[in-house]
This record gives sequence, structure tokens and C-alpha cells, in this order.
Amino acid sequence: MSTPHQAPVASMSEFNTSLPSIRRIQGIIREKSDVEVKLLTGDDINGKVLWIDDNCICIESGTGSVKTIIWLHAVAYIK
Amino acid sequence: MSTPHQAPVASMSEFNTSLPSIRRIQGIIREKSDVEVKLLTGDDINGKVLWIDDNCICIESGTGSVKTIIWLHAVAYIK
Amino acid sequence: MSTPHQAPVASMSEFNTSLPSIRRIQGIIREKSDVEVKLLTGDDINGKVLWIDDNCICIESGTGSVKTIIWLHAVAYIK
Amino acid sequence: MSTPHQAPVASMSEFNTSLPSIRRIQGIIREKSDVEVKLLTGDDINGKVLWIDDNCICIESGTGSVKTIIWLHAVAYIK
Amino acid sequence: MSTPHQAPVASMSEFNTSLPSIRRIQGIIREKSDVEVKLLTGDDINGKVLWIDDNCICIESGTGSVKTIIWLHAVAYIK
Amino acid sequence: MSTPHQAPVASMSEFNTSLPSIRRIQGIIREKSDVEVKLLTGDDINGKVLWIDDNCICIESGTGSVKTIIWLHAVAYIK
Repeated sequence: MSTPHQAPVASMSEFNTSLPSIRRIQGIIREKSDVEVKLLTGDDINGKVLWIDDNCICIESGTGSVKTIIWLHAVAYIK
Repeated sequence: MSTPHQAPVASMSEFNTSLPSIRRIQGIIREKSDVEVKLLTGDDINGKVLWIDDNCICIESGTGSVKTIIWLHAVAYIK
Repeated sequence: MSTPHQAPVASMSEFNTSLPSIRRIQGIIREKSDVEVKLLTGDDINGKVLWIDDNCICIESGTGSVKTIIWLHAVAYIK
Repeated sequence: MSTPHQAPVASMSEFNTSLPSIRRIQGIIREKSDVEVKLLTGDDINGKVLWIDDNCICIESGTGSVKTIIWLHAVAYIK
Repeated sequence: MSTPHQAPVASMSEFNTSLPSIRRIQGIIREKSDVEVKLLTGDDINGKVLWIDDNCICIESGTGSVKTIIWLHAVAYIK
Repeated sequence: MSTPHQAPVASMSEFNTSLPSIRRIQGIIREKSDVEVKLLTGDDINGKVLWIDDNCICIESGTGSVKTIIWLHAVAYIK
């Protein structure tokens, strides 16, 4: 998205945090880890996870801090 | 769609606006931001988001303001 | 389908017509607009929308008015 | 499936027959129409529809009356 | 899976056995038919169906009786 | 994920353990078997299953014990 906008706070929406997958992603957000997100299209998106919710995960990457909203159904894996 | 038609108002349908993904898309609609929508087919559709609902997202693009109704299940990401 | 059969009436099945996507498609059916339907396989099917229901959308195309029943889960976009 | 087996009767399972898509497929079964089934893999399977249920559609094709059980989620369209 | 393990009994889990697709697969398990399973990736897996449940189908194939657990959402067809 | 982090315990979350697929995966976790996970993208990920939950399966592979969180909807099969 070319226009600057008020970046949403890294949010820990009310998930089932008993699930290891949710706990892992929340850890990744807290630690601002660099991750590789592989999509079902074969695309690789690298950067930091800003937030995750029921539909999407938002990755901030590159110098211009470009924000990419990825639909979870399109995610193959996160490494 | 080749025939002109009465363009629906940019609509903020009743979503769970507590979700960051919905708030982001609503911001994109309000700001009439230019976005890139990447599909699971590998297609890229660039333009402005007219509306989003439970099934689809509508992008207006190009000089002829062509309207493309994209099924959300086919969306990989929005940037 | 090679055998002629009684073409179903263009039907406006009981959908959630408050959704812009449903209203758009119903408009396309009423106006008998020519549309391009892009599938997740990459196929393009051009023609007129005869009907849509919870599972499928039916496109009539070409001189022989061939009817194609497309599963909605296979649709990427309609333009 | 290489071993002969007792072919299930062409069945009209209890679907929501108010839907045009279900009525169409039931018509195809009754009329023993020859159809082309395009899959999301790009495969084309031609033959007669033996039955359809919530999960699958069964196509009988070729001289050896080979029966193929296709998962509906893999179907792009039927023509 | 490289390590030998106690093969689960060919199981007929409590499905809706009124559906032709479930009856067909149960017949295939009983008859130990050789089948071809085509995946959405384009892969072909040949062998005998050990079991099927709500999530997966297990195919035993090849001399080393390799067991492959296939997610049903990845199955295109069984022949 | 490049930063070390506290590896979650191999967890047997409360699944429907009557299903053969869940029992199989739990056996694989207990036995620390080496498995091949084939994704719908065509990718192959080899390693040991650390945990599985409703959304994802976590594979630890390679010398650097890289942890890959794979969405179950992207899994074709495990062998």
C-alpha cells in the first residue's frame, strides 16, 4: 500500500492460545523475529509479523516497511 | 463487465471490525489507496478497493474503471 | 453437455442480497451482461450468467449455447 | 479400480433439490448425458455421471467402464 | 515413514454409510483393491487403501509396504 | 526462524484420538520418526514432527534444527 497509514499495534487477538501454533506465532510477534512466509502460489515473503487474526497475517518487510496482508488460506508455512 | 452499471457505494458491510484485517481493508477503502491484489492463480490485479463482503472483494482498475469481483478464497495477499 | 435439455430459468435463489457481491451477480443476470470468469485453473470462460446458487454458477457461452456449471470454489474472479 | 465390483445404482441422494446446480446434475444422471469434468489439476475426465453425493461425483468412462470417484472440492466445472 | 510400526487395522470408522462415496471406499478397503489416487499436486499414488477417516486416507504401496497418509483435501480422485 | 526460542514440548493436543490419522501422527511424534511432508506447493519438508494442532503441524529438520510451522490445509501427504 503506497500511502502511509497509522500502523495497527502488533495485536494478540483472542485466539485459542492453548494451541501450539498460536503460541508460536505470538512468540514470533513478541520477539519481532524475521520469518519466511511461503505461500501456496510459491511466493516467499520475508519480514516481521505485525499481527495475525482469524483471516490474515500481516508482514512488514523491506526498507520501505511495506505491509502485506496475507490470507491464512494462502499460507503454506512459516519458517 | 462491458455494460456500464450503477456502481455500488463503497460499502463497509457489518464485519467483525475488531479484527485488524477488516480494519485495514476498511482503511484502504476510505483512503481510496492503490493496492496490488495477488491471486492464487498468480494473477496480479491493481486498483482501488470499492467494497468487500463475506464472499468477495471488488477492485476498480484502469482507465475504463473496469470492476473485478474477486472471490476471497482466491486472494493470496493485498499489498 | 451434448444433449439439449430444458434450460433452467435464470434464477435468483434466496441469497443474502444485502451483500454487494450477490447484488452485483444478480444485476449481471438481469442485464444479461457478457462476463469473463477466471478460474483457479487459469481457464477463462466467457459468456452470460444463467444462474448462481450456493454451490455453482452457470455460464452460457458460444454459438451452441454450451452451458458450463462452474463450482464457486474454483472461481478466481468475474469481470 | 482393476477388480469388477457391483456398480452402485445411479443414486439421487437427498440434496437440496431447490438448487439449480443439483437439479442440473440430477438431469444429467437421468439423461445419461456425456459430460466433460474439468478438475483443478487441469485434468479432463469425460464420461457419464453415475452418482453424486455430499463429497464426490462418480464418472463412468471409456470402454472398460472405469469408475472414477472425484472429490467435489477438486472439480472446476462440468460441461 | 522409515521405521516399522504396528499397522492400524483397516478401519471402517463411523461415517455416513448412506453416501455412495463412503460405501465405495469401504468396498475398496474390504476387497483390498489396487487403486490410483490422484492428488491436487498432480502426484499419483498407487496401492491399497488401509483406512479412511474424516481427515485422511492411508495408502499402502510398493514392496516395502510404505504407508502414505494423504489429506482428503489434497485428493482429486480415486480410480 | 533465525532466533533461538524455547521449543514447545512435543504436544498431544486433545484431538479425536479415535481417528486413525490422529493416532498415526501421535505415534510418529512419540517415535520421533523421520517423515517426508509433501505440500500442495510441491515442496518436500523432511524431519521430525514436534507437534500438531487444529491448524498446523511443526517439523524440525536439518542440523540447525530449523522449525517449520506448516498449515494443515497446505499438506498433501505425510510418508
